Amino acid sequence: MQAEEYDRVRVETKGTVYEGTLMPSQTGSIVLKLKNGYNVGISRDSASVTLLRKKEDAIKKETAPGCQATNKKLPDISILSTGGTIASKIDYRTGAVTSQFTAEDIMASIPELGEIANYNCRVIYSILSENMRPEYWSELACAVHEEITNGADGIIITHGTDTMMYTAAALSFMIQTPVPIVLVGSQRSADRPSSDNAMNAICAAAVATSDIAEVCVVMHGSTSDDFCHIHRGTKVRKMHTSRRDAFQSINARPIGHVEYPSRKIKTISSYTKRGEKKLSLNDKLEPKCAIIKYTTGASSESLLFHSGSGYRGIVIEGTGLGHVSTEWVPYIKNATDAGIPVIMTSQCIYGRVCDRVYDTGRDILKAGAIEGEDMLPEVALVKLMWALGQASGMDKVNEIMRTDMAGEITRSTRS
Amino acid sequence: MQAEEYDRVRVETKGTVYEGTLMPSQTGSIVLKLKNGYNVGISRDSASVTLLRKKEDAIKKETAPGCQATNKKLPDISILSTGGTIASKIDYRTGAVTSQFTAEDIMASIPELGEIANYNCRVIYSILSENMRPEYWSELACAVHEEITNGADGIIITHGTDTMMYTAAALSFMIQTPVPIVLVGSQRSADRPSSDNAMNAICAAAVATSDIAEVCVVMHGSTSDDFCHIHRGTKVRKMHTSRRDAFQSINARPIGHVEYPSRKIKTISSYTKRGEKKLSLNDKLEPKCAIIKYTTGASSESLLFHSGSGYRGIVIEGTGLGHVSTEWVPYIKNATDAGIPVIMTSQCIYGRVCDRVYDTGRDILKAGAIEGEDMLPEVALVKLMWALGQASGMDKVNEIMRTDMAGEITRSTRS
Repeated sequence: MQAEEYDRVRVETKGTVYEGTLMPSQTGSIVLKLKNGYNVGISRDSASVTLLRKKEDAIKKETAPGCQATNKKLPDISILSTGGTIASKIDYRTGAVTSQFTAEDIMASIPELGEIANYNCRVIYSILSENMRPEYWSELACAVHEEITNGADGIIITHGTDTMMYTAAALSFMIQTPVPIVLVGSQRSADRPSSDNAMNAICAAAVATSDIAEVCVVMHGSTSDDFCHIHRGTKVRKMHTSRRDAFQSINARPIGHVEYPSRKIKTISSYTKRGEKKLSLNDKLEPKCAIIKYTTGASSESLLFHSGSGYRGIVIEGTGLGHVSTEWVPYIKNATDAGIPVIMTSQCIYGRVCDRVYDTGRDILKAGAIEGEDMLPEVALVKLMWALGQASGMDKVNEIMRTDMAGEITRSTRS
Repeated sequence: MQAEEYDRVRVETKGTVYEGTLMPSQTGSIVLKLKNGYNVGISRDSASVTLLRKKEDAIKKETAPGCQATNKKLPDISILSTGGTIASKIDYRTGAVTSQFTAEDIMASIPELGEIANYNCRVIYSILSENMRPEYWSELACAVHEEITNGADGIIITHGTDTMMYTAAALSFMIQTPVPIVLVGSQRSADRPSSDNAMNAICAAAVATSDIAEVCVVMHGSTSDDFCHIHRGTKVRKMHTSRRDAFQSINARPIGHVEYPSRKIKTISSYTKRGEKKLSLNDKLEPKCAIIKYTTGASSESLLFHSGSGYRGIVIEGTGLGHVSTEWVPYIKNATDAGIPVIMTSQCIYGRVCDRVYDTGRDILKAGAIEGEDMLPEVALVKLMWALGQASGMDKVNEIMRTDMAGEITRSTRS
């Protein structure tokens, strides 16, 4: 019997034996998710694969025992784990959470959480967040949809911080939600004295039980343990490799913040309130999209390569107001002529793209590129994948890209 | 007689006539620099080219008449223009400066400059800064070297803001300087009431006559007209598409600031003093390098394409501490095995790369990637071009990349 994706297998190669779950692989090599949560890539040459167990629902829909609601007076929160835990001594990134991820563990580690809600816990993935894939966003969105359908009053998603902003943006586009959907992570693992693990988790639970019915990221707002920001899922970016307050709202103010330890929520931007929207799911997307960054003198080869290699959409990180060298313009036109949407964003990160001011910009627009407004390049990429999943035809896709769908485009940027 | 690069030509195509200077072109199309400073790209099909005048020294080494020192008590500053002027009503980007760029014009527009120095003015280029090329950095560095050799007490380079940080980094690596080399630009053109044109120019002149003998960027420090930051050339980034205080020092404090209108300089970081270093020039570089940005689920195809298309060096903008998905690791190894240095930086922009913490990172290091420390991805790219121009052999190039050459790597980052 042939082993298929998500089957449990044993792989022997050059004297080493691995056991794990067979993961989707783009490259032809064997990708195995080990019990400890790590993925390994193994060359198919000289590897022998033995099937241990058929696709068990081990990755999706695994509910740990004992992780059920207990106090009927408190709201019910579903915690979906993608690569970490807010409960254990193991950090969000490496996240070996499967067995010990129970309500009892949570209460034992962070007793304060017990005052806030009852928790239903599901392990969706145990991966490092740099190994997330657009396909996984869809599965995660389905799991969120399922939990809300089953009555969850709020969702907490634990996630590695590296690509949390990409997942937050994806869920923002995929789900219309009547309840809060909160992504939370930790910059420092729980076994370090400076860990942000517990405080972030407590603030996330406060937001998940609040009336803020949006996809948001809740992480430390300063280097002290005094508050967490509540960032809109489409306006947030990891802006530091290691600081606890690495996450910042860009081109928008945060929705608000959660004071700690009081758990008091103060909002400073308008937001969608609990129950205002009906639950719906549009999780289809086209992952074959890329970001290309323009740098001084960069050859148009990369643009040409992507246009000719089956990519369905391209986001350019231009300079300043959204520029590339004059030599790139005909290649942008080639791409858009071939039905590949090209979205212009800025590597400045802050501010708004405006290609109407200078000749280069106007040429870029004439070549069919779409201004990404004040969208983050990474958010424009995720949105483009989603737009291509929702609509066919350049005109419709471009229209979606120009329209604010989930707070990703603000009418005017503070300056 | 065949028209060659930098010759003055007339191009007729489909009823339109252009006159301008024939520029180097990568794409096979005709690139013409018009009198107004813009470049146009024209398809060779159905275009007829008439030679008007042979390569006159119009682009390089053009000294405008009347732009010479007049007051012997004041220091002599050379202003090298690359695409703009601090004198005229025309903005830095479009920069139609050739004819009116004289000392008289400067004094007429910004009389305060006359109190600070005598000015010797040279037009090096008149291009939009997104059309800068690594080859032009070398020419600019040679011009700077020439001016200092000829006795200039300081250099001001006027530059479009889009790629100013790339040029500043390039000059930082190419030139050891005994005098200040100041890049300055304008986010708002001189004909707008909110223009930062004059104040930036005055502060730049103050720094060019100071004892700060480094390549630096002098631009608005706030949205008010109260001070300009003095940024180290390897630690500065354009962080906003339109704000006047778009330029920020990253992972380092600025060298200092210039108060306005007092022109008082306050330094807050250590710096190289006037006369401390002997003038030297190492302008050789290898432009065939690229930045590749890792995004969730990004295919390793782009890495494979660049490794196999004659690229001599690659900078990866990874996530967080410097990560890519596990699937990229063998392709990094392929590149380094083929003698292509791979430098890992972070798209977080702030903070330091550290690939020793997690398995993915350690695998990336084992595959031969070099940690970019706290270098900006763009600076790492420029440095890699320069390192490949200076040294052959992976070991030597990697050693240069790991060593602080011009303040681009700081030992510890504020957190």
